[in-house]
Amino acid sequence: MMDIELYSSDEMKLVNDVINESIDCGIKIIERVSHHVIDSGGKRIRPAVMLAAYKSLNGKDVKEAVPLAASIELIHTGTLIHDDINDRSAVRRGMPTAHTKFGTSAALLTGDFLFVKAFELLSEYDKEVRDIITQACLSVAVGEIIQSQNITNIHLSEKDYLEIIEQKTASPISASSRAGGVMAGGQAAHHDILEKYGLNLGIGFQIMDDVLDVVGAHKETGKPLGNDLSEGKMTILSIHALNNTNNSKYKFLKSVILNNQNPMEDILEAIDIMKNVGSIDYARDLSVSYGEKARAALEELPRSEMIDKLMLMANFAVDRNH
Amino acid sequence: MMDIELYSSDEMKLVNDVINESIDCGIKIIERVSHHVIDSGGKRIRPAVMLAAYKSLNGKDVKEAVPLAASIELIHTGTLIHDDINDRSAVRRGMPTAHTKFGTSAALLTGDFLFVKAFELLSEYDKEVRDIITQACLSVAVGEIIQSQNITNIHLSEKDYLEIIEQKTASPISASSRAGGVMAGGQAAHHDILEKYGLNLGIGFQIMDDVLDVVGAHKETGKPLGNDLSEGKMTILSIHALNNTNNSKYKFLKSVILNNQNPMEDILEAIDIMKNVGSIDYARDLSVSYGEKARAALEELPRSEMIDKLMLMANFAVDRNH
Repeated sequence: MMDIELYSSDEMKLVNDVINESIDCGIKIIERVSHHVIDSGGKRIRPAVMLAAYKSLNGKDVKEAVPLAASIELIHTGTLIHDDINDRSAVRRGMPTAHTKFGTSAALLTGDFLFVKAFELLSEYDKEVRDIITQACLSVAVGEIIQSQNITNIHLSEKDYLEIIEQKTASPISASSRAGGVMAGGQAAHHDILEKYGLNLGIGFQIMDDVLDVVGAHKETGKPLGNDLSEGKMTILSIHALNNTNNSKYKFLKSVILNNQNPMEDILEAIDIMKNVGSIDYARDLSVSYGEKARAALEELPRSEMIDKLMLMANFAVDRNH
Repeated sequence: MMDIELYSSDEMKLVNDVINESIDCGIKIIERVSHHVIDSGGKRIRPAVMLAAYKSLNGKDVKEAVPLAASIELIHTGTLIHDDINDRSAVRRGMPTAHTKFGTSAALLTGDFLFVKAFELLSEYDKEVRDIITQACLSVAVGEIIQSQNITNIHLSEKDYLEIIEQKTASPISASSRAGGVMAGGQAAHHDILEKYGLNLGIGFQIMDDVLDVVGAHKETGKPLGNDLSEGKMTILSIHALNNTNNSKYKFLKSVILNNQNPMEDILEAIDIMKNVGSIDYARDLSVSYGEKARAALEELPRSEMIDKLMLMANFAVDRNH
């Protein structure tokens, strides 16, 4: 797990403690739904980036940043629960999704509860910090809605795809990084660097997620192979493949994306087509290039142990198997 | 409409302007879903109570309270959209519900968007005000989830019912009233009075809503008659009726509550049973008693034109036909 491999597990434990305090509200169903998702081994990349960003600008007491790191993870968890309802996903992280296990109503309302708990934690911070996180939440909602409007849109461009993943995935990571820096204090220029770092890491991270959807082993990603294809969700891989196939393969890919229920052999054939036209390599290279941009942004900050950690996180984001 | 009958339409227009600014984000689907619900003739009781509470304690510039009033209505709107998804309600205010018209995904995400927009507006206020509204949002989420857990629970007690409606409906009205007072300044004791007023008004309002579910004309409430019964949602009426019927009528009521699809003649027969055992009169009387408590709370404040308006609002909440 990210928090053990790349970030101090003691400090991540503090974040988990705050998350658990927020969840443990005495209402059993909220606790069960929340723990089901929270305890299922998320990578905690947003809090990890936030705490490392805070320390990279010599933040004095990491405990100051911990509730905000918990807040951003609670928002992420609420978003995941709502996304799975929208996508009708049955499995995440190798387990049944919240709405599959507990019903749509309990899942939807627990998502709402987690958002409010996150804003309760956020309310303790200065307006500048609050605004950074709030704007990221708006971006996520807008990104998710634009994505859902483009399900099965085989004409979606790479540019539009990048805008969607910037909003839905990169903006909260970018906000985590910037907010961590702002809490630490120091120069505004340094906060801008951290924001740029988080943005590029986030874009690379999501592209890698989309790659793992078609190359990851089910056991490691915890999702069925070709899940995005099954759901008609357009990714850099399907966009690249559609742009680089001849008539018959194009038609086949299109039919897989448009169909609601595809037999696994069709999914595997579609993945083979992507592989053969170089879509997977293309996406991996693109992901890596964003990881490089993230690291390049950090070059402008004085080198330190914590900057090295942020560099490692950028590497992990774009080069991982789960 | 409440805002025209009972509250200055000029000031409510300012609230509507802020709401519209928040909605008009350039993303067509968000704008369409939001306007569909916002423009469908809600009573705006939360902003009306907030602005009147602000003025009742001699708040100097109502424009100070307007964005917060818009915020509370945005939260209410997001909650309505999510509730209708949970309840699988097809009709509200005489129109198709958001998820029926635009699909679950667009509705769910627009609900999320409206929550975040509300918190964006809220972020401009002092921590005391932010905390009042945030705690009310938590109560709403908890109340809704407990309610959803008790769908078709024919053993729900009146006490539990009152706790649920206090959380889901009365707490945001109570918070609106208190926050209006806090923004105006003055004595803490006066803020407590306004909170008590809002709480009792809110409980009475929800009981009256539940009465209207079985006696309201479809044209006026905009909902199908006996909607709560159809959805298996326990209300003061079904609880009272179950406690006051003999064996065969009890069994019939129970079957209507437990069944998913009831023919309209069974719904009408169930309503007749409620009428005959006095459940409707009982609920009306209870609602009126909460309206009286709301007004009694205000007796402790110096009488003024604005206190009279708050009194009228309490009357309206518990004595209306839509």
